[in-house]
Amino acid sequence: MTLLFKSDIERHDTWLPALQKHLAGREVRLWPEVGEKADIEYALVWEPPEGFLATLPNLKAIFSIGAGIDHIIADRKRPAHLPVVRMVEDGLTAGMTEFVLMQVLYHHRFMLDFRAQAAQRLWREIPAIPAGDRRVGILGLGVLGRDAAAKLATLGFDVAGWSRTPKEVAGVACYHGAEGLDAMLARSDILVCLLPLTSETRGILNAQLFAKLPRGACLINVGRGAHQVETDILAALDSGQLKEASLDVFETEPLPADSPLWEHPRVVMTPHIASMTVPDTAARSVAENIARIEAGQPPLNVVDFERGY
Amino acid sequence: MTLLFKSDIERHDTWLPALQKHLAGREVRLWPEVGEKADIEYALVWEPPEGFLATLPNLKAIFSIGAGIDHIIADRKRPAHLPVVRMVEDGLTAGMTEFVLMQVLYHHRFMLDFRAQAAQRLWREIPAIPAGDRRVGILGLGVLGRDAAAKLATLGFDVAGWSRTPKEVAGVACYHGAEGLDAMLARSDILVCLLPLTSETRGILNAQLFAKLPRGACLINVGRGAHQVETDILAALDSGQLKEASLDVFETEPLPADSPLWEHPRVVMTPHIASMTVPDTAARSVAENIARIEAGQPPLNVVDFERGY
Repeated sequence: MTLLFKSDIERHDTWLPALQKHLAGREVRLWPEVGEKADIEYALVWEPPEGFLATLPNLKAIFSIGAGIDHIIADRKRPAHLPVVRMVEDGLTAGMTEFVLMQVLYHHRFMLDFRAQAAQRLWREIPAIPAGDRRVGILGLGVLGRDAAAKLATLGFDVAGWSRTPKEVAGVACYHGAEGLDAMLARSDILVCLLPLTSETRGILNAQLFAKLPRGACLINVGRGAHQVETDILAALDSGQLKEASLDVFETEPLPADSPLWEHPRVVMTPHIASMTVPDTAARSVAENIARIEAGQPPLNVVDFERGY
Repeated sequence: MTLLFKSDIERHDTWLPALQKHLAGREVRLWPEVGEKADIEYALVWEPPEGFLATLPNLKAIFSIGAGIDHIIADRKRPAHLPVVRMVEDGLTAGMTEFVLMQVLYHHRFMLDFRAQAAQRLWREIPAIPAGDRRVGILGLGVLGRDAAAKLATLGFDVAGWSRTPKEVAGVACYHGAEGLDAMLARSDILVCLLPLTSETRGILNAQLFAKLPRGACLINVGRGAHQVETDILAALDSGQLKEASLDVFETEPLPADSPLWEHPRVVMTPHIASMTVPDTAARSVAENIARIEAGQPPLNVVDFERGY
C-alpha cells in the first residue's frame, strides 16, 4: 500500500522519517510528488486542493493531519463515500492541555492587569482568587476538551463542560444540549472553546453568547477562527462584558495587518499554535488505524458526516 | 491566651474573622492596638518593627505570616530563645504552584516571542518543544518547591530539584550540595528559585550561576529579591545567556520607577504576588500549632537558626 502525505513542504523533514518508521515497508509519497495515482490507498492531508482527492481511484481512507476536519470537508468534490479520520494522538492532546492551562492561569492570576500596571510603574497587589472559586467552562468535551477539563480540575478549578450529547468526566460538571449551554455559560468566569467547527457551531462565539456569561468573563478560543465573530469580541471587550480574551485562531488567517487584535491590551494573541500534531505519535496513530482497516475492522475516530465531526 | 496580629492594616478585614474562627474563645488583637503587653503569648507577624517583640514579656512563639522568615530574623533585638514558625499552609502552596506552572508554561510555549512577533504583525509558527524535552530545575525543595516540582512532572516536564541536604521527590531528579548544584544548573532550560533567603543564598542568582546554565535558559524568581543581582540579570539578558526571566521579587520593593525591569521585553514582571497566605487555611495552621504548644508538644515548621530557615 502507498500513503500520500500532503501538508506544507517545510514539514516533510520531520514527517517523512516518522511515517517511514511506523509504516515500515510501505511506500510514503510527499505531495506534490504524487506519482502513479492508482497506487495511493491512503491520504494524510492538510487542506487538500479542491477536487484532488477525487482523482485517486483506489483511495480507501482520508486522514486529517489536524484535530479538525473542516479543511477536508470544505472540498465539495471529495469522494463522499470514503471515511474521513480525525487526528487523535497523545502529542496533540498534551500540547493543547498545556496551552489551555497556561491561558486559564494567565487570566486567573490577573497577568494582563499586572502588565498594564507595570506600564504605569504601579506596584499594587491584586488579591488572588482561590482556584476553587474560579469557574471555568469548556465548550466541547471531545478528546481535547476532556483532557483539559480533567487537568484544570486537578489544579482545583471549579470546572464544567458542555457537549452536544450527554458525557461524563470525573470531577467536571457536565452539561449538554441547548438548555445546558445557557446554564454552563451562566457559571463560566473563564470560557474555553474546544468545539469542532460544524454548521451548528459556526459563529457561536458572538454577542448573544457573551451576554449569557457573567459580566467580566474571559474568553479563550483554541477551536477555529470561524467559531468567533471578531467584531462582537471587540465590542464585548469595549463594554466590559468580556474582560479579556486569548485568541489563537481568527476569522482570516494569517490575521490581517490592520486587525486591532494583534496588540489589543486585553487580548493575548497567538498565530494558531495552541497545539500541533506531533509527527511521531501521529504517525503511530495513523499506522494503527491503517492496520485496523487492512484487518477488516472499522478505523477509529471516523467522522460522522451527519453531526459534522 | 492572646494572639497579636501584625500586618498591613488593610488585611485586618480578612484576617480577623479567620483568626477568631480558628482560635475560638481566645483573644485576637490587631496591631497597633496592642493593649496590655503581658497578655500576649503568641505573635503572628509580617515585618515586626525592630525591637518590638522583645517588649512582650510573656511571648511564647513568633509565627510568620509569609513562607519566608527573613523579615523576622532581620530584627536583631528579637528574643532569640523563642521559636520562630514558618508559614506552611495549603492556600499558600496552591497559589505558588499555580504561579510557577503558569510562568514555566509561558516560557516553554514561547509567549514572549509571540508577543514580539505580534508587535511586528508577524504571523509565524514557532515549533513547540514536547514537555518531556524541556528540562526544568527547581532551586529549593521545601514544601513549595516539592509541590511545584511534582505538578510540573505530572504535566510531563523533565524536572530536577536541588536542596542543601538530600531529599526525595517522586518523578523528580534530586540533587544536593555544591556539586549537585552545578550538575542541576547544567541541565536547567528553565530555572525556578524557591529557596529560603539565608546568608548562603543571598545573591545566588548572579552572573556566575547564570554561566552554569545552558545558553538561552529562562529564569523564574519567586523567592526573594535579595536572591538576585539585577545588574547581572540584565547583562545576561543582553548577552543572550538568559533568554527570558519572570521576576516576582526585586532587590528593592516596590521596584523603583527608573528600573528597566518594569517593561523589559524579555521580562515578565509582577509586584511580589506569586502567592499570598490565605487567611482561613493559615489561621487553621496557626491554631493547630498553638494547640501543640499548649499540649506541651514542639510546634511544627520551627526555624533552625543554624541553617537559617
